[in-house]
Amino acid sequence: MSKAPVQIIMGSRSDWPAMQSAIEPLQALKVDYATSIVSAHRTPQRLYTFCRQSESDGTRVIIAGAGGSAHLAGMAAAMTWLPVIAVPMPSKYLKGVDSLLSMVQMPKGVAVATQAIGEAGAYNAGLLACQMLALSDPALQQRLIDWRRAQTDSVAEDVQ
Amino acid sequence: MSKAPVQIIMGSRSDWPAMQSAIEPLQALKVDYATSIVSAHRTPQRLYTFCRQSESDGTRVIIAGAGGSAHLAGMAAAMTWLPVIAVPMPSKYLKGVDSLLSMVQMPKGVAVATQAIGEAGAYNAGLLACQMLALSDPALQQRLIDWRRAQTDSVAEDVQ
Amino acid sequence: MSKAPVQIIMGSRSDWPAMQSAIEPLQALKVDYATSIVSAHRTPQRLYTFCRQSESDGTRVIIAGAGGSAHLAGMAAAMTWLPVIAVPMPSKYLKGVDSLLSMVQMPKGVAVATQAIGEAGAYNAGLLACQMLALSDPALQQRLIDWRRAQTDSVAEDVQ
Amino acid sequence: MSKAPVQIIMGSRSDWPAMQSAIEPLQALKVDYATSIVSAHRTPQRLYTFCRQSESDGTRVIIAGAGGSAHLAGMAAAMTWLPVIAVPMPSKYLKGVDSLLSMVQMPKGVAVATQAIGEAGAYNAGLLACQMLALSDPALQQRLIDWRRAQTDSVAEDVQ
Amino acid sequence: MSKAPVQIIMGSRSDWPAMQSAIEPLQALKVDYATSIVSAHRTPQRLYTFCRQSESDGTRVIIAGAGGSAHLAGMAAAMTWLPVIAVPMPSKYLKGVDSLLSMVQMPKGVAVATQAIGEAGAYNAGLLACQMLALSDPALQQRLIDWRRAQTDSVAEDVQ
Amino acid sequence: MSKAPVQIIMGSRSDWPAMQSAIEPLQALKVDYATSIVSAHRTPQRLYTFCRQSESDGTRVIIAGAGGSAHLAGMAAAMTWLPVIAVPMPSKYLKGVDSLLSMVQMPKGVAVATQAIGEAGAYNAGLLACQMLALSDPALQQRLIDWRRAQTDSVAEDVQ
Amino acid sequence: MSKAPVQIIMGSRSDWPAMQSAIEPLQALKVDYATSIVSAHRTPQRLYTFCRQSESDGTRVIIAGAGGSAHLAGMAAAMTWLPVIAVPMPSKYLKGVDSLLSMVQMPKGVAVATQAIGEAGAYNAGLLACQMLALSDPALQQRLIDWRRAQTDSVAEDVQ
Amino acid sequence: MSKAPVQIIMGSRSDWPAMQSAIEPLQALKVDYATSIVSAHRTPQRLYTFCRQSESDGTRVIIAGAGGSAHLAGMAAAMTWLPVIAVPMPSKYLKGVDSLLSMVQMPKGVAVATQAIGEAGAYNAGLLACQMLALSDPALQQRLIDWRRAQTDSVAEDVQ
Repeated sequence: MSKAPVQIIMGSRSDWPAMQSAIEPLQALKVDYATSIVSAHRTPQRLYTFCRQSESDGTRVIIAGAGGSAHLAGMAAAMTWLPVIAVPMPSKYLKGVDSLLSMVQMPKGVAVATQAIGEAGAYNAGLLACQMLALSDPALQQRLIDWRRAQTDSVAEDVQ
Repeated sequence: MSKAPVQIIMGSRSDWPAMQSAIEPLQALKVDYATSIVSAHRTPQRLYTFCRQSESDGTRVIIAGAGGSAHLAGMAAAMTWLPVIAVPMPSKYLKGVDSLLSMVQMPKGVAVATQAIGEAGAYNAGLLACQMLALSDPALQQRLIDWRRAQTDSVAEDVQ
Repeated sequence: MSKAPVQIIMGSRSDWPAMQSAIEPLQALKVDYATSIVSAHRTPQRLYTFCRQSESDGTRVIIAGAGGSAHLAGMAAAMTWLPVIAVPMPSKYLKGVDSLLSMVQMPKGVAVATQAIGEAGAYNAGLLACQMLALSDPALQQRLIDWRRAQTDSVAEDVQ
Repeated sequence: MSKAPVQIIMGSRSDWPAMQSAIEPLQALKVDYATSIVSAHRTPQRLYTFCRQSESDGTRVIIAGAGGSAHLAGMAAAMTWLPVIAVPMPSKYLKGVDSLLSMVQMPKGVAVATQAIGEAGAYNAGLLACQMLALSDPALQQRLIDWRRAQTDSVAEDVQ
Repeated sequence: MSKAPVQIIMGSRSDWPAMQSAIEPLQALKVDYATSIVSAHRTPQRLYTFCRQSESDGTRVIIAGAGGSAHLAGMAAAMTWLPVIAVPMPSKYLKGVDSLLSMVQMPKGVAVATQAIGEAGAYNAGLLACQMLALSDPALQQRLIDWRRAQTDSVAEDVQ
Repeated sequence: MSKAPVQIIMGSRSDWPAMQSAIEPLQALKVDYATSIVSAHRTPQRLYTFCRQSESDGTRVIIAGAGGSAHLAGMAAAMTWLPVIAVPMPSKYLKGVDSLLSMVQMPKGVAVATQAIGEAGAYNAGLLACQMLALSDPALQQRLIDWRRAQTDSVAEDVQ
Repeated sequence: MSKAPVQIIMGSRSDWPAMQSAIEPLQALKVDYATSIVSAHRTPQRLYTFCRQSESDGTRVIIAGAGGSAHLAGMAAAMTWLPVIAVPMPSKYLKGVDSLLSMVQMPKGVAVATQAIGEAGAYNAGLLACQMLALSDPALQQRLIDWRRAQTDSVAEDVQ
Repeated sequence: MSKAPVQIIMGSRSDWPAMQSAIEPLQALKVDYATSIVSAHRTPQRLYTFCRQSESDGTRVIIAGAGGSAHLAGMAAAMTWLPVIAVPMPSKYLKGVDSLLSMVQMPKGVAVATQAIGEAGAYNAGLLACQMLALSDPALQQRLIDWRRAQTDSVAEDVQ
């Protein structure tokens, strides 16, 4: 695991095509990140180690993508005080409804920040991580404000 | 944690009213059990210890009840080779649909045996545990067969 | 019907592409199995005969895959004390939500062990059957523990 | 089981409060009926006997009410050529969505006539049975036509 | 509209690919049928005329297929005492869940016999129509019994 | 049926407690309305007469509330060019999901204006009717603008 | 923004393929319209300006198409007294169920006129706009009546 | 609007009973907050002012609770770069499924951090706000770590 303020983890390599949208806003806003596969179900010990290490090596925000019985984000949040952003992966048959409910319906006392299903959610996870970091980083805050203005300006009025 | 072939765990005391139905078939079929609160989210370390200990102290089957983002059964199954039976608790607003999908949609490689939402599921969890144990316990097998016959005979034909 | 400790039945030939994932863990863990088509709706008498015969010829676990109004697993469980594992097949329009609810919402007194919809569920059905048999087969138990460790080790950390 | 052209069966006594609505149109249209408890899961043999007997003792239509993993109507239809009308009972947590999907999503080759969830569905099951019988009973057909006209006339225009 | 004991209507030509499955059992069991497009929404007057005419020209059963806000079967049932079988068409985005609920949740007093979504439901609609007609046609009843036996015999046991 | 620019119809007297919210904005904005029971299923002829009459007696907007297989709004829209506003009534078991889908998923060519389930939807139906009439009634338009401003002003900032 | 009695707005260019169905009935009935991209989320200020301008430049009806967390129609309705028609766009994973619920479940006091998901809904949005305008435009009313009659006449009776 | 690092807004006074759970963790962890009613639909201008002001008066995190077509969180996020936490309120008929989907399915480029439906979600919203602030407040970080440990210790093992 490489050091970086934003750690992006996912349950399986098959989540990468959707999860890679998370790095777009991080790159645009010049925030460092690292990616790795950590499966709550297949590598529970690795998840434990990851969470322990994150607290001591400078990680500020964890982004976790998983599908189906998506336990990754909730279990990470159970093991660290760092904010965890959850991205429900689109599952094969239920299209991510299972992933979404597995992630968002957390019990009192352990919170995650759930995003939309799939790429849009991954993208917004990266963006939300930047928003959190911008709270204590005035330069990032300024880049974020500029980026939002540019985004607004880029919306053309014509439908075609 | 007391020693017993069937360990019944649940995420919160509020699950007990529904989960206690699990002990009915266990008592009727004279199978020992123990109960405890283990929360995947609030006591992740206790869950780890519980699973490690279960493998060495004679536990044969684990029954896990949880609601909402119900990670208890899946995480237990991730940490032991013992069969894990999952009981989705009825959640306040989604009535257990969230619990059910969180439990049943497990990825390839880590299995749980999911039951119906609520009391009926808890009851059947106890029964299924007996069925598993009866595979290598001829006396229990006979009690099970007799119990099933009695159950069938007890269904009256009259509607009132 | 061939003799084997694990009997895999399904309602229709069209279920085979998904159901064949069940044999992967059985083969990997060297557990014998047999497969056949048994339809609760189109061959109810065959299902009855199958259940009667299973109890006397050494079957230990039944895996049943069916879709839509999926009655196969529940009806098998109604006719034998052997554990029955249910695999909801992905239906054409409802994607297996119908199959899942038809299987998992069993009434008090007749239990099945429901898995995820589709291939992942079929795979885990085979695995869970091994876990049940390992309770009274120390050699299988050791193979299962080794297989789980190898599975964990095979999860690469890199996302690509 | 008493002889009658319309046989009303249900999986449990707890279905009777909803299922008794089925007898209203049967009584209003002077069609004989009988009621009994037959559970696909708890009394599979009784269901088999019931279906065999129905074909030879003058039964014309079977009305089957069940909840959750509602297999009763589909299994009855699998065992007799007589028309089977299915009434999904409102289940405790899923409110009958499970019952409805378990009943209506029958595979090609075995049909049931599914009604609405609960009392309204039970009532209409009784009515549809009358419509089927009226096809070959001109007097019943006339009573049905008169009853429908009276029903229409009884709808007051005022909202209070 | 041609005379025939079974009238198959549908809301749009786009329903025909799914609805044509209804004629398979009718042809196999030698029951006459006719087909036509009748839209509750776009040709309400034609539906009224169709229902009036059906009652007087020898129609015994109406099969109605429609999708989305599927009002065809319910409105037909509102305008004739003849049994109406409803087939929910798979809609583009909601896959027939909308069609199913629009058809099956009829209020007390006007019944339809709802089938599964799509081709399977259309096929079973044809079959159920035969079952209703067989109640008063011993030759058809015998053909139906033979056809069911042949169907059962044709289910091969091998999975491939 | 009394003459009025806004006609409020509903399928059953049991819809009145929810539907009466429709008259609040009509009264507040001084728009005349009439109410009556018209059931698509139980009084199809009355619905036909109602629509014919509406077109010639000065009705401008129809508000239709119905539940379950809610065909009232769609069938009204099929029989008149006047705008029809649909209010899904909360059904007993499905809470209006069935009513909503039955109303909103209209096919190309026959439109209704669907509102939220229950009282809020009924209230907004009355409001939307006023908005339509205000397009050609400057005095009503002014009352509407004033009413909206008053509504905004009445929202207190304190949470208690 | 061009002046026109019907303003069609949508949240993104990707909505245009579905939204363009809205212009079919407008063209057929000779009603002027304009189209533009206005995003509640990415261009909230443009939405505010659009609504203010609409009230003063002759706009009579607004049609708003959006997907996912579809806030466009509701926010437009919050900022103008003009009638707003909402068209839920089919979202990638949830197929427009999210868009539909986001649009239709408006609170008391701010109404939108929700249509079906996708193209059919867009088409009917255009049609409903014409129906509203026809209330005060006798020539348009006549064109609408003629168009509806032609639509009815064009429904062929043959299924192929 | 009072100054505070955490601003809690909600669409209506009726959201307060659920939303007040948000203040529990804020009080326990000694983080200042303010509460107010801001409705996206009924007071859009107030929402605009609130967002503008938040950016300049020291607000760090916004918590927004709303129900049904829940636009409050998404619109706030559209108008400020500050992190916005969304709490879906349980709606009367759909139990918050509508609120959840309206909030969580945000398009690329505008993110919110969605929580569970109801009280648990409100509570976790307060907690997540603390986690965000703890990233740059070592004393709060220590209080948070201690609080989490106390929470874990307080989970009794006994089921009763």
